[in-house]
Amino acid sequence: MKIICTKSNLVKGVSIVSKAVPSKTTMPILECILIDATTDVVKLTANDMELGIETSIDGDIVERGIIALNAKIFSEIVRKLPDSEVTIETESDNQALITCEKAKFSIAAQSGDDFSYLPAIESNDFITVSEFTLKEAIRQTIFSIADNDTNKMMTGELFEITENVLKVVSLDGHRISIRKIDLKDSYEPRKVIVPGKTLQEISKIIGGEAEAEVQISFTKNHIVFEFDRTVVVSRLIEGEYFRIDQMLSSDYETKVRVNKRELLDCIDRATLLIKEGDKKPIIIDIKDDAMQMMIKSQIGSMDEVILCTKDGKDLMIGFNPKFLIDALRVIDDEEVDLYFMNAKAPCFIKDEEQSYIYLILPVNFNAAV
Amino acid sequence: MKIICTKSNLVKGVSIVSKAVPSKTTMPILECILIDATTDVVKLTANDMELGIETSIDGDIVERGIIALNAKIFSEIVRKLPDSEVTIETESDNQALITCEKAKFSIAAQSGDDFSYLPAIESNDFITVSEFTLKEAIRQTIFSIADNDTNKMMTGELFEITENVLKVVSLDGHRISIRKIDLKDSYEPRKVIVPGKTLQEISKIIGGEAEAEVQISFTKNHIVFEFDRTVVVSRLIEGEYFRIDQMLSSDYETKVRVNKRELLDCIDRATLLIKEGDKKPIIIDIKDDAMQMMIKSQIGSMDEVILCTKDGKDLMIGFNPKFLIDALRVIDDEEVDLYFMNAKAPCFIKDEEQSYIYLILPVNFNAAV
Repeated sequence: MKIICTKSNLVKGVSIVSKAVPSKTTMPILECILIDATTDVVKLTANDMELGIETSIDGDIVERGIIALNAKIFSEIVRKLPDSEVTIETESDNQALITCEKAKFSIAAQSGDDFSYLPAIESNDFITVSEFTLKEAIRQTIFSIADNDTNKMMTGELFEITENVLKVVSLDGHRISIRKIDLKDSYEPRKVIVPGKTLQEISKIIGGEAEAEVQISFTKNHIVFEFDRTVVVSRLIEGEYFRIDQMLSSDYETKVRVNKRELLDCIDRATLLIKEGDKKPIIIDIKDDAMQMMIKSQIGSMDEVILCTKDGKDLMIGFNPKFLIDALRVIDDEEVDLYFMNAKAPCFIKDEEQSYIYLILPVNFNAAV
Repeated sequence: MKIICTKSNLVKGVSIVSKAVPSKTTMPILECILIDATTDVVKLTANDMELGIETSIDGDIVERGIIALNAKIFSEIVRKLPDSEVTIETESDNQALITCEKAKFSIAAQSGDDFSYLPAIESNDFITVSEFTLKEAIRQTIFSIADNDTNKMMTGELFEITENVLKVVSLDGHRISIRKIDLKDSYEPRKVIVPGKTLQEISKIIGGEAEAEVQISFTKNHIVFEFDRTVVVSRLIEGEYFRIDQMLSSDYETKVRVNKRELLDCIDRATLLIKEGDKKPIIIDIKDDAMQMMIKSQIGSMDEVILCTKDGKDLMIGFNPKFLIDALRVIDDEEVDLYFMNAKAPCFIKDEEQSYIYLILPVNFNAAV
């Protein structure tokens, strides 16, 4: 094999597929990027068996062939080369030569034989969203997946399509995040659970432009994202997702409208007094048109009053401040509405169209104060 | 005590003096910032007994007094306050109240009684350099101090004044870095060893403008830097510094002039093939008007030719690439001159006026290839 392409194209391609290279593995071939120049186009692929990414880059194929290179070494070398044309060629069975201007690197290579190619997926049945919308929907929900594997389902997000609405849901046992996205067309109903890691990597790769489109298609076991010159294939998490509809309610006894920035900054300041791992709640005393926010720990105490517009009863309620911060941070509205039932029922932060809903469980603060 | 000052003044002052707060200590008072409002000016001080920093900030003193607050908690709170006026007052013997707009923090405080004030230093005898020059001189030498304490002297830098020249020297047993700075006036000869940590912190605090001046004065055991509204007092390292003059030589058998950027980038690329802790040298083969740079490791091999202008004999010599990179990175010249004697004698990188001299010992590469 011998190919020639620009450093910048290589860097871009390598950085995309590297997202599917596992950081730890016992199989050296999984740590590789496959350079496939057997057809008329140079394709880079990485695949950790859960998540696989393939992208094609511009380049001249001088001699057709295929080669697998250690992703870490290859990408570091490519990044540090002069900004010029790079030649990659097979030197011997297990050696590759990378040349750029007067620099010559010789590194170990593997034949592509052992490499696990991406599963071939028929993708006639797909939905279309903009890169921007997908990236936003991930950002606005990904923080409330569970980060450990005790419940596999909680480490993923529900993608549910009903007619022309895509609903993205994540939950971790203390809170639920829901984003609804209007699609241009109507589709057959479908429910899949996408691994959180896949979504995290996707959102790093896609550009986020409102004009660029992502095609999302499904098979029994896989979800496929296609955009630009890249294909991302991920296994789905098997099983039936939690029934969240029965946890949602539109009733409330207290409704508060407040400036989002002020509320977020106040809670953010309050957390200074909490050491990592310490479970002190922030207590919110809603009375008339003000929310008094209080926190008390071994380090000291804080007390701040925020003006708000209140509907309904007065209420005193406690929360894990981190959960409020996580939700408020990803809401783009200037004003937010908080709905409460009582000190033991979940709080809802949602907009009128319910394009986003954040459910957060309160904590018992009597014991804590 | 009760003082009022703007958040921005407080943040600036706190971030300056925090540099002298030890990260680990068994004495809680050393972790504190002292707020001294006993005179007409608000002074902040921190002192870890080796390094002490005092700065004054603008503020209204409503009630005179003095208080010591935990530096970490105090600076985090101050940073997160709204951009407005901040009131700090003594609430009780061991409690301070920090108020800003509607936010109220109450944190533990200590009386200033146990605090170690900076040693009072008479400073009539001082030299003057610009902030820019001092910052540059530190940056261009600090990388070659030794980072462990096996030889205390190597963890500091020599400041030697001879008439109107300040010479700054660091060395770690493998290399020596020397910067000479022309002073505006002539001074009495003086030699002191300044702790590396002091210089690192100083260079973070000073702004680096060419117009701003730093006054440096000395006592038997201390060096004092005064600039803007800040005083930094540091202990000196005791003892007689290494005699470096006998290690320097102007003879050479081979002289090479080369583009600095090209040489640095090439060595930087070569280091990709070396894993942390692996001691592979880069081998430089100087022949005619070219330097061939070679490195070989378990990962692979690299080979690159750089054009240069050569005076004298051909030479093949090996170096720890990190030492070359460290020196080349801080040189601002576009072209650099390298002087060699033979493969076992040190290499010198220096400019014609010898405003900088970097001595680097070669490594035996026969064993390594």
